[in-house]
Amino acid sequence: MSRCLVYIATSLDGYIAKKGGELGWLEQFPNPDGSDFGFEKFIQGIDAIVMGRKTFEKVLEFERWPYKKPVFVISTTIKNIPKKLEKQAELIHGKPNEILERLAKRKLNSIYIDGGKTIQSFLAEDLIDELTITRVPIILGDGIPLFVKTDKEIEFEHVKTEVYKNGLVKSYYRRNR
Amino acid sequence: MSRCLVYIATSLDGYIAKKGGELGWLEQFPNPDGSDFGFEKFIQGIDAIVMGRKTFEKVLEFERWPYKKPVFVISTTIKNIPKKLEKQAELIHGKPNEILERLAKRKLNSIYIDGGKTIQSFLAEDLIDELTITRVPIILGDGIPLFVKTDKEIEFEHVKTEVYKNGLVKSYYRRNR
Repeated sequence: MSRCLVYIATSLDGYIAKKGGELGWLEQFPNPDGSDFGFEKFIQGIDAIVMGRKTFEKVLEFERWPYKKPVFVISTTIKNIPKKLEKQAELIHGKPNEILERLAKRKLNSIYIDGGKTIQSFLAEDLIDELTITRVPIILGDGIPLFVKTDKEIEFEHVKTEVYKNGLVKSYYRRNR
Repeated sequence: MSRCLVYIATSLDGYIAKKGGELGWLEQFPNPDGSDFGFEKFIQGIDAIVMGRKTFEKVLEFERWPYKKPVFVISTTIKNIPKKLEKQAELIHGKPNEILERLAKRKLNSIYIDGGKTIQSFLAEDLIDELTITRVPIILGDGIPLFVKTDKEIEFEHVKTEVYKNGLVKSYYRRNR
């Protein structure tokens, strides 16, 4: 089955966005070096991206489509991908393991899982193999959480941590199976 | 006013204990070097400890009283500190800022704030000056959270991060006022 990777930034209190998906707090964070904090390198190593509807709609607001890898959007409400993005993105349905089986058949073996609800649904099935969390030194107080309550404990192995000049701390964990 | 310091370990999903305050997941974490992860050094730098009733009752279960610094217990239900600990601990009442004023009058200037509810009540008033969070590479799924929803954002400055051989990542933040 395909490997699933999460690569995400959170506040110290574990939020990936403010309510309504607002990311300004993250984008406005001082970054004098213009670093992408390793994101481009991470993207080069994956075969496809799976995200939920809300993340997809957020990305649609960007000035330009940011991904060079195929994107799969999990949604029960979207009927069609906008025509201009038909080559970049497609809808996908099913449970997390069904989605992974389908992607594996298409030789997409390394999958970037993005978006709060999508990450949570894959974590609930213990399907996340690599977890990179970048901690931003702010307490937001409220927002969209990375983690929600689950009924199983999941142990990870810490592989490495990088500290950026602006105080971001990026830790890379591998599932300890 | 006194400075408030938090020094705590959390799971990746932000829990400081399992439900009921259970800490076995933390104590059983591999620690071949027998490191205290800097705790003793941290304690040497503080003047007093403020904790809630639940943390106090947890510490009472330990084989021996672990603190050499004066402990103040915030409680509305405990009437008396057990006689054998009268020299080590005392009850204290009031709102966080009232407590800090009282401690400052006693020349206790550097206060270790411990316990979920107590930390949360001091954070809600933006009274935490230093925050050391050690991330344990496990998702617990449920338990006692370090953070709860608050109505203000609080920015911190990252000072340093230490990575331990067993995968614990300790980040030290200072309030950015």
